Amino acid sequence: MSATRYTYLGPAGTFTEAALRTLPEAATRELVPLASVPAVLDAVRAGEASGAFVPVENSVEGAVTATSDELATGTALMIYREVLLPISFALLVRPGTALDDIKTVTSHPVAQPQVRRWLAANLPDARWESAASNADGARLVQEGRFDGAFAGEFAAPIYGLEPLVTDIHDAANATTRFVLVGRPGRVSSPTGADKTSMVVWLPDDHPGALLELLQEFAVRGINLMRIESRPTGEGLGNYCFLIDCEGHLSERRVSEALMGLRRICPQVRFLGSYPRADQGRPTALRPGTSDEDFSLAADWLSRALDGRGEA
Amino acid sequence: MSATRYTYLGPAGTFTEAALRTLPEAATRELVPLASVPAVLDAVRAGEASGAFVPVENSVEGAVTATSDELATGTALMIYREVLLPISFALLVRPGTALDDIKTVTSHPVAQPQVRRWLAANLPDARWESAASNADGARLVQEGRFDGAFAGEFAAPIYGLEPLVTDIHDAANATTRFVLVGRPGRVSSPTGADKTSMVVWLPDDHPGALLELLQEFAVRGINLMRIESRPTGEGLGNYCFLIDCEGHLSERRVSEALMGLRRICPQVRFLGSYPRADQGRPTALRPGTSDEDFSLAADWLSRALDGRGEA
Amino acid sequence: MSATRYTYLGPAGTFTEAALRTLPEAATRELVPLASVPAVLDAVRAGEASGAFVPVENSVEGAVTATSDELATGTALMIYREVLLPISFALLVRPGTALDDIKTVTSHPVAQPQVRRWLAANLPDARWESAASNADGARLVQEGRFDGAFAGEFAAPIYGLEPLVTDIHDAANATTRFVLVGRPGRVSSPTGADKTSMVVWLPDDHPGALLELLQEFAVRGINLMRIESRPTGEGLGNYCFLIDCEGHLSERRVSEALMGLRRICPQVRFLGSYPRADQGRPTALRPGTSDEDFSLAADWLSRALDGRGEA
Amino acid sequence: MSATRYTYLGPAGTFTEAALRTLPEAATRELVPLASVPAVLDAVRAGEASGAFVPVENSVEGAVTATSDELATGTALMIYREVLLPISFALLVRPGTALDDIKTVTSHPVAQPQVRRWLAANLPDARWESAASNADGARLVQEGRFDGAFAGEFAAPIYGLEPLVTDIHDAANATTRFVLVGRPGRVSSPTGADKTSMVVWLPDDHPGALLELLQEFAVRGINLMRIESRPTGEGLGNYCFLIDCEGHLSERRVSEALMGLRRICPQVRFLGSYPRADQGRPTALRPGTSDEDFSLAADWLSRALDGRGEA
Repeated sequence: MSATRYTYLGPAGTFTEAALRTLPEAATRELVPLASVPAVLDAVRAGEASGAFVPVENSVEGAVTATSDELATGTALMIYREVLLPISFALLVRPGTALDDIKTVTSHPVAQPQVRRWLAANLPDARWESAASNADGARLVQEGRFDGAFAGEFAAPIYGLEPLVTDIHDAANATTRFVLVGRPGRVSSPTGADKTSMVVWLPDDHPGALLELLQEFAVRGINLMRIESRPTGEGLGNYCFLIDCEGHLSERRVSEALMGLRRICPQVRFLGSYPRADQGRPTALRPGTSDEDFSLAADWLSRALDGRGEA
Repeated sequence: MSATRYTYLGPAGTFTEAALRTLPEAATRELVPLASVPAVLDAVRAGEASGAFVPVENSVEGAVTATSDELATGTALMIYREVLLPISFALLVRPGTALDDIKTVTSHPVAQPQVRRWLAANLPDARWESAASNADGARLVQEGRFDGAFAGEFAAPIYGLEPLVTDIHDAANATTRFVLVGRPGRVSSPTGADKTSMVVWLPDDHPGALLELLQEFAVRGINLMRIESRPTGEGLGNYCFLIDCEGHLSERRVSEALMGLRRICPQVRFLGSYPRADQGRPTALRPGTSDEDFSLAADWLSRALDGRGEA
Repeated sequence: MSATRYTYLGPAGTFTEAALRTLPEAATRELVPLASVPAVLDAVRAGEASGAFVPVENSVEGAVTATSDELATGTALMIYREVLLPISFALLVRPGTALDDIKTVTSHPVAQPQVRRWLAANLPDARWESAASNADGARLVQEGRFDGAFAGEFAAPIYGLEPLVTDIHDAANATTRFVLVGRPGRVSSPTGADKTSMVVWLPDDHPGALLELLQEFAVRGINLMRIESRPTGEGLGNYCFLIDCEGHLSERRVSEALMGLRRICPQVRFLGSYPRADQGRPTALRPGTSDEDFSLAADWLSRALDGRGEA
Repeated sequence: MSATRYTYLGPAGTFTEAALRTLPEAATRELVPLASVPAVLDAVRAGEASGAFVPVENSVEGAVTATSDELATGTALMIYREVLLPISFALLVRPGTALDDIKTVTSHPVAQPQVRRWLAANLPDARWESAASNADGARLVQEGRFDGAFAGEFAAPIYGLEPLVTDIHDAANATTRFVLVGRPGRVSSPTGADKTSMVVWLPDDHPGALLELLQEFAVRGINLMRIESRPTGEGLGNYCFLIDCEGHLSERRVSEALMGLRRICPQVRFLGSYPRADQGRPTALRPGTSDEDFSLAADWLSRALDGRGEA
């Protein structure tokens, strides 16, 4: 029954599953791992699942471009939640394996730069090879094809392995950001610490358009949190931008800015307003940009149009 | 009866009266000259007249600061019409006077720089003295206290004088701009070539505020036509700005910009939207700033909030 | 001998003279009052004086446009000093006159709004008439043509009068700003709290030019202190702007901004860099805009051009 | 001998090699394929090669992030040339193979979306599997492990294959951009149609910094050609930006803009100024931004500082 089904980027035992399980509602959903980002999202588009959970960006590797491209094109989807997961690896081995026994290790290529320094210091002679996913690496260890796999500690029991070393990560604060995506629906109420995501296409032949676009945010005191350029497929030099900004579409400063983008740009795709997962408090509003300020200004306008500007 | 009475900056026989008479409705109004800009405007404030006609700026002398200050402070008024009058002087003399007879000339001080070059070339030995107005100068010639007065040719019959020389003006295109002012009322419909006037006070202690204020116009593609700074009376370095921009308050780009100013500035006084008197066509709208563009963007927003962003 | 002569806007006994005498060097100069701002400045242009002292703006009345226009046009001059003088009036009378004896009062028209409220409260029946200057008003009282004159208290002994009431001023903090002007010369060293003045003409047919011009300052973190528009004489809608900004032309952020203006605008007239007369400390520099920051950036550029960007 | 050696992203027979061979000098260099972008660039860093040739971005797939990250971090390198190569695939088969014989095909994953539509229309039942590179896919066909490989037509003779179908590409104008990289050296002379590349790190805790950064370009009339965000590794939300702009570092508008960035940003890495490979003419310079305009403005400044501003 699709309403209770969430798809996610599999296989089971990856960080994606671990992140998904931090959502309270995950406990009551059927969680279905699928092999690719398009497959995960298409299941929602086809009505076979009510939610799709995919990685968006990693603080070391950058954007997950498959997710960016899927959100920017095809049938529109909407982001309802985000999850931030600190990334830390365990070295998983078959029970009984000691550090000295390890000659070969494996992991997803994305993991490799995050364990490189640890490897050089602790297993300088071990040979690393890539796996299709960290969980798949664990499976290969289970099958005896490698001696160790770098993966989340939570993957160990799934594959009958033991974490020999834990908390391995080269970059301090390595974090991956995931989003829960669904079919477009009514935007839920703001929480006071929200984020809004969108994709904008620049007008052709307008070199200053990116600056104009950013000024739609700046003039209304809205901070940008992320900007990612992606090719439009129309040839080199043609980009669309995935943008995350502070605030919620139901806030006046945000809605007015997005309408401004809509007037400038040939296409704007709204990707959702949802609660910020970072603990940080939102930046204080710039004076004159609260909903109350907008409301007072609208009252002022009505009076001015009516000849009662300073009654 | 005040509804049919217009006051104007007198005395009779000045350029102000000539400009006022270019308004078709002037033919059916009682036109009352008063001695000062405050007096002219206070008559409207007090309900003794329905319109007040005053000069705003001259292309040679600049702003008429008495008008600026009266519009910026005191009981609010609104501009309903503007008139541009090319300024050209006649040398008025008593009948029978020849150029060689002229030893003394007079005019309002504002006229002096506009006839200086003509005087140096044609009456190098004549002594100039100031009069309270050009019309008053004509009266002094009538009384025999000066030999010639620089004034509008139309003043000659009023004072029993003759125009000895006409079309005197040093600066090409010398023009004075006048406005018809009334008590605040419902803003009339746009004509397609309108102008909007306002006074804005900058927030304290905010050195970049003038730039922010101009960006509220720029981001919505609105051209400024005039900006004049006036002291607020709160000490040196504190200014308010009288601003004229293209467009009409009922146009979305203009109303959104003014609401933006209202949110930034401690005070904004709307002075009216009225037809442009210059023959020039308005600058073409920047793409994305027409009322239709605003309307399409608002529709887009409604759909986005409703989860039907790209239905 | 012109090198020791300063001209100033007379007559003697006005606030202008009082402000001039606050300059230490005034004690060793021959101070010559002249009747008009052009006359005062032309004396310097002609080499008949080494300095000219004129009012620039008043916190109640605004710009002294005669000074603005003289600085913007004609042979170039340069500002070397500024003086701020709080304006407060005394009611000067012939010895023996009591308040009840006063039926007629006089002053320069600029003084009238600053004493209006005092008059209404204390001499509601007195008739006010304008004089050519406050000092001239004092002379007229001496001659018995008026009963009282509003002028600076310092004018009393010059005209054999007595200050009957002192410290009269309606607006709190009424202040006039004066400048000492000379022929252009080498810009003197910065003091750390300087101001730079200039006149800029906007390019034709370029509605966004004023914003671009302000951005040349903003992008380099320079605060504007004053902006005044004046007509260019080329017809309504054509303005030049007198601008005062923080900083000194020898500072890199300022010189780069002015070169930026020079590239955008058809004409830029530098009017001088000179010490600020207000006691306030200059606004803290925005990070990245000190001379040292500019110097480090230039070093970086040299290395980059040389292929040693990060040696 | 390293001075005549160029490394490139191998293996032989890929589009990268084909692009490299469009450089005239390639004919006289020893061309050495290496297995990864870091390996290719490290050979130059170590002095084992004088040039390294790597892909930067593809109009369908976007940035080659391995190249971005290598250019942004580690020992500094510089871009000397760029090459644009239209991407079009051939279906390579063993001699004698007919379309109907093909049950399995392979290619690098990046090629897959570019041939997807062709596959669906022409070989709907064929199974696609990924190869380490397009050339490696050809080798696997040679070995009989697949029936067909999508690769550049030029790869056919290397692997004893035949192009069965050519000119396969889903996206019109699919193009890959490559750069020739070397150790930092003196920037060569501008050609009149140049491009400048850099990496900038935003200051911490400064939400408006991206806008300020773009204004350093805008205020000097410089068009941006590309902007790519990459994580700094300091945690989510911290990005650096790889930027390509029009113009050459030896042009004043460009050098002043980059010095402006250098003053704002904690780090700016100059990546080179080099001829644009696109045939398009550079955008006309905005008035006031030519080197001559800068030079005239500098002359004006010297005169102003010297008191000869309008001599």
